[in-house]
Formats: sequence, structure tokens, C-alpha cells
Amino acid sequence: MTRIAVVAGDGIGTEVVAQARKVIDAVLPGVTATEYDLGAARYHRTGEVLPDSVLAELAEHDAILLGAVGDPTVPPGVLERGLLLKLRFAFDQYVNLRPARLWPGTSSPLGQVKAGEIDFVVVREGTEGLYAGAGGTLHRDTPAEVATEESLNTRHGVERVIRDAFARAERRERRKVTLVHKTNVLTHAGSLWSRAFDAVKAEFPDVETEYQHVDAAAMFLVTQPQRYDVVVTDNLFGDILTDIAAAVTGGIGLAASGCINPAREFPSMFEPVHGSAPDIAGKGLADPVAAVLSASLLLDHLGHADEARRVSEAVAAELASRTPGAPLRTAEVGDRLATAAAG
Amino acid sequence: MTRIAVVAGDGIGTEVVAQARKVIDAVLPGVTATEYDLGAARYHRTGEVLPDSVLAELAEHDAILLGAVGDPTVPPGVLERGLLLKLRFAFDQYVNLRPARLWPGTSSPLGQVKAGEIDFVVVREGTEGLYAGAGGTLHRDTPAEVATEESLNTRHGVERVIRDAFARAERRERRKVTLVHKTNVLTHAGSLWSRAFDAVKAEFPDVETEYQHVDAAAMFLVTQPQRYDVVVTDNLFGDILTDIAAAVTGGIGLAASGCINPAREFPSMFEPVHGSAPDIAGKGLADPVAAVLSASLLLDHLGHADEARRVSEAVAAELASRTPGAPLRTAEVGDRLATAAAG
Ligand SMILES: CC(C)[C@H](C(=O)O)[C@@H](O)C(=O)O
Ligand SMILES: CC(C)[C@H](C(=O)O)[C@@H](O)C(=O)O
Repeated sequence: MTRIAVVAGDGIGTEVVAQARKVIDAVLPGVTATEYDLGAARYHRTGEVLPDSVLAELAEHDAILLGAVGDPTVPPGVLERGLLLKLRFAFDQYVNLRPARLWPGTSSPLGQVKAGEIDFVVVREGTEGLYAGAGGTLHRDTPAEVATEESLNTRHGVERVIRDAFARAERRERRKVTLVHKTNVLTHAGSLWSRAFDAVKAEFPDVETEYQHVDAAAMFLVTQPQRYDVVVTDNLFGDILTDIAAAVTGGIGLAASGCINPAREFPSMFEPVHGSAPDIAGKGLADPVAAVLSASLLLDHLGHADEARRVSEAVAAELASRTPGAPLRTAEVGDRLATAAAG
Repeated sequence: MTRIAVVAGDGIGTEVVAQARKVIDAVLPGVTATEYDLGAARYHRTGEVLPDSVLAELAEHDAILLGAVGDPTVPPGVLERGLLLKLRFAFDQYVNLRPARLWPGTSSPLGQVKAGEIDFVVVREGTEGLYAGAGGTLHRDTPAEVATEESLNTRHGVERVIRDAFARAERRERRKVTLVHKTNVLTHAGSLWSRAFDAVKAEFPDVETEYQHVDAAAMFLVTQPQRYDVVVTDNLFGDILTDIAAAVTGGIGLAASGCINPAREFPSMFEPVHGSAPDIAGKGLADPVAAVLSASLLLDHLGHADEARRVSEAVAAELASRTPGAPLRTAEVGDRLATAAAG
């Protein structure tokens, strides 16, 4: 029996998560979903971000479905460090998976790229690097102030995420992995990433490999996004590159993501890349596609590959049938996707 | 009397720098140029990257004109840390200036953007952050290996580059500065950057401001590059964002840059953003426009604003007159630009 924790969150988070649940229920009846009230609203009401008792309860679930958390009045870092990153680290979600696909029916700001031509996934490391929270400040608010941020990279952490990327590449048609780093400047971490990459590569003789500096990759994501199949990179580079990937495939409105603990020792978390969008919240106008695609990743992670495929095919059909610029109603899209996926 | 040190470097560096010199000579006769042999070729021949005696000689010049250094056989970091970053740090070139302009006659991979619509500059911090070289490795090549990279940010370093960005914005038409950082995750450095930004902003009441997280900025550079006027950001974010900026304005083949010590206590360095391009080197096919635009930045920095403007107008005319896809000859382009700029 599958148990999902639902963190709908703030703004449009609630609206899109409701559609994702509809779709999950349609393809996999009998899933138990428990709602957790976390995010900006709870923080404002109670001052709490993620009580230990809630963390312990979340740990008892098979997966977490998250909508979006935050609003502009919460100080920077509070929900990010206290909730999102806390969950990624506590549940050892070291594979931050972000597919980038230019779906038929959608269009890219890149003039020369046609639907179907972009189809890659970014495997972003999720538990190390500059996200470790290692940093400090001395002499704050004086002319002598110094602030540091430290990127921590372990062989353990780097090797496992690279291995995951190769394993994914092996299951794909093109079987290619691109390592992205900045080995010419970040020589210590860069060397660790390169050596781990070379070691893992030896285990996957069928997989083609390449290396790019992060600045070059940022450029090629704009000029030749078609060239990528699986991209593996560190936490911060992955954060930036996946937003470029979303931009060239029609915007973060369509981008799904999973924070995955592959061995399922802890629950993985699935969420649309977009935020809580306070400007359109409560109007029933948000596109639930990114949340529904995140639900597809969730199903796939839990071993329901067929159901996952039916959901993503329903999304493909929905997008292909849309008239550009036509308004959409969140709940109607959810209904259509649920019906189509139930098949 | 103006004294320029010329580091032509490797590959097409030599070819494009020759054109930049032609153009400088045409608009500012009497400049003394001294050539320095540095780069991959010298490293392979002698093992030397930047001898102290050469560094001392370079310091005696008003500016450095650099072509491109490197080839694929030099280990990562050797020329970057030993030469390029060494110069940026030794000469306190804290303003890494990268204009991004979609010139009439050129085209963007972005389908909806027209020539003339993109015109901003990135003021990238050049002497701090993750480029400080603070990092290390423990237990190398064992399963216990850990590698670190530290971002060092001082109030001194951050405030001065932000002030430079505001001063530039004040001289531009739109007068807008966008701060880019990742304050929600890099809370220590992010807080320092934000507080310094707010303090400097108070000195420039005419300048409009905004803040964006680096991932959002990477996305908006693709979806709405028109929105930017002056972008100020840290060293690594600037490295990545300026390559996106180059990509959306027609490629790094056209992008110029200056590593600037604004008070001229030390020589500033000007170079095209492109590399040594071994594949087309020696054929006279490289486009010298980025090198010539870098020469224009050099002239401007040394107080020759009129000459700088004539050079950039010559480039504008050259680009506007090109037939897309037509082959070009490096030396002929240089001749045309020199003649046009001499006026
Ligand atoms: C909200 C923030 C902490 C997060 C990140 O930086 O990882 C977001 O940008 C993302 O990409 O999921
Ligand atoms: C070559 C490298 C050290 C350099 C950098 O990272 O700054 C380059 O990418 C640049 O942008 O000038």
C-alpha cells in the first residue's frame, strides 16, 4: 500500500497539487495521501518551518508530493534552508532529477529548435557542494566584514550521483553523459569530480561521455540544447543549468523535478520547478502540467513505470492539443489528464 | 605616451590581436606596443607560465591586450590559475566588464528578439569569491576523499564592484542595476552582497534597482534579455551569466571583455571572450570583431572615449554590412575596421 505525504504549500501549490493527486488516483487507485501544512502560511501563523515531529512523520511515507512553498514576505533562506534543503539533506535525496523536454505543441524561445528535438535529463547532485550550509561571517556590518561559503564534495557523494547518471544513460537511447564542472578554476572539487567520473565511466563501456566547463554548458544549452542526453553536475551548477534548460523548453511552468533517494531508504520528493506564483494564486489559472509530470516521476520512482508512462503520455496529448495563448482552467486540465491517463 | 603590453597567446589569439592593434594604431597613433610571449606554446616549450620578471614588466604598462591562451593539451588550471587569474588578482582587476549587445546585422538564437533590443553590461566581480583559490583535498584517491572550494567575499571587494556598477548605470540611458546572487541558499555571502548593495544604492537615488536569484537570472537571460541594463554579480555567477549573454547575442565570437582596475593603479587587461580555437587557427578565418571591441574597451578605459566610440561604430557598420554565412578573412576585416575607425 503506497503512502504519500502531500505538502501542497502556498499560492498555486495547492491548486496544482490537487490535479497531480487526481491523476495519481486515476492511475493507481488506493494510494493513501496525508496532507502536511508546511510553507509560508504556516510560518507566518506559527513561526514553525519544519518541526522535528513532522520530519519524523514524513519519513514514514513512500514519497512526498510538494506543490510550491514561499511568498515574498518570508526572509530569504528561511523556507529554503529550513524546509526544502532540510528535506533534501535529511532524506539523503542525492539525485535531483530534472528532465528537459520540448514537448510537441509547445514552443521554445530558440527560433531554430523544433518540438521533439530537445530531450535530456539533468542529474543534479542534491546533498553536497555549496548547499552544505558551510559558511560564516566575521565583522558583520563593518568595513572589515568577510563572508564565506564553502563547497564540500566527498568521493562518496560525487561517485554515487555520477553512477546514477550513467545508469540512467544506459537505459536511454543515446547513452551519453556530459559531466559539467569548472575544473579549470575549481581545481580541487573539479579534480575529484573528474576522477570519480573516469572511474565510474569504466563500469559503463556502452555510454559515451564528454566534459564541459559550466560556462560553456550554459552557452550550449542555448545554442545547441539538442546535443545533451544526460547531464551530471554539482548542486549549484545544476540549479542554474536546469533553469536554462527549463527556459529553452518552454519555461519553468512545464518543468518537473524529483529529489530522489534512489535506494528508497528515505522518501523521495517530487515537485514542479515553478514557485508559488502569488500573482495568479487562487484564480484557478495555474497550469498543473509541471506538478502532474512530477507525479509521473514519483510513480516511476516507486516502481510503477507503466502508470508513469501513461501520465506522461496524457501530458503529451494535452500539450499537443492546446491552442497557443488560449486560457486554461487548472481543474479542467487536471480532469482531462486524469481521464486520459486512466485510459 | 601610451604603453600597451600585448599577449597574443595561442591559436587564433595571434591573428585577432594583430587586427586589434591595427585598429588601435589607426585611431591613436604613437601607442607603444610590447609583445609578451605567454600561453600554451611557451608553457610547452619552457615549462614557464608567468615568470615574476614578466609580471613586473607587465606592471609597467598602461594596459594589456590579450588574444587567447590555451590548447587542449595543457592540464586544466595551469594557464587559468597561473596566468589569467594570476593577472586579474595581481593587478587587482576587480571589475570584469562584459558588454552584451545584439548588433544590427547579427542574429540571436532567440526567435523573438530583434537586433538592437539587447544592450546591457555585466559587471562581474573579478578578484574574490570562488576564484580566490581557497580549497583543498584530503584523503585523495580513497573512498574517504573530500575536496573543498571556498568562496571568500569581503565588504571591501563587494562594495567597490557594486559602486562601479552603479556609476556605470548612472551614465547609461536606462539607469538600472540588477543584483544577481543566490541569497536564499548562500545566506552568508548573499547577505553581505545584499547589504552592500542597499548601502551603495542610497548613494545613487536616480538608479533603479532589482534583485534576482542566479537561477532566475539565467532563465530571464533567455526569455527576456531585453530587461537588463547593468547586471552586477559575483565572480562565478558572472562567468556563467556572461556566457549565456554571449550566446543570446550571437555567440562568444563577438563578445569582448575587460578586466579592469578602475583607478588605474595597475594595468587593466582586455580580451575577447572566445578561446584560442585550435581548429581554425592559422587559416586567417577567425573573426577579429571581439578582439577589436576589446580594444575599444581598452581605449575607453584609458580615457580615449572618442577613439573608443569610433572603433565600436566601425564594428557596428562592419556587422551591419555582412551577408549572413559569407566567409570572412581576418586581415581584411581588420583593414576595413582600421580604415573606418580612422575616419
Ligand atoms: C528554492 C531553492 C532552495 C532551490 C534550489 O536552489 O535548489 C530552487 O531554486 C530549486 O532549484 O529547487
Ligand atoms: C578561462 C577561465 C579562467 C575564465 C574564467 O572562468 O573567468 C573564462 O571562462 C572567462 O570567463 O574569462
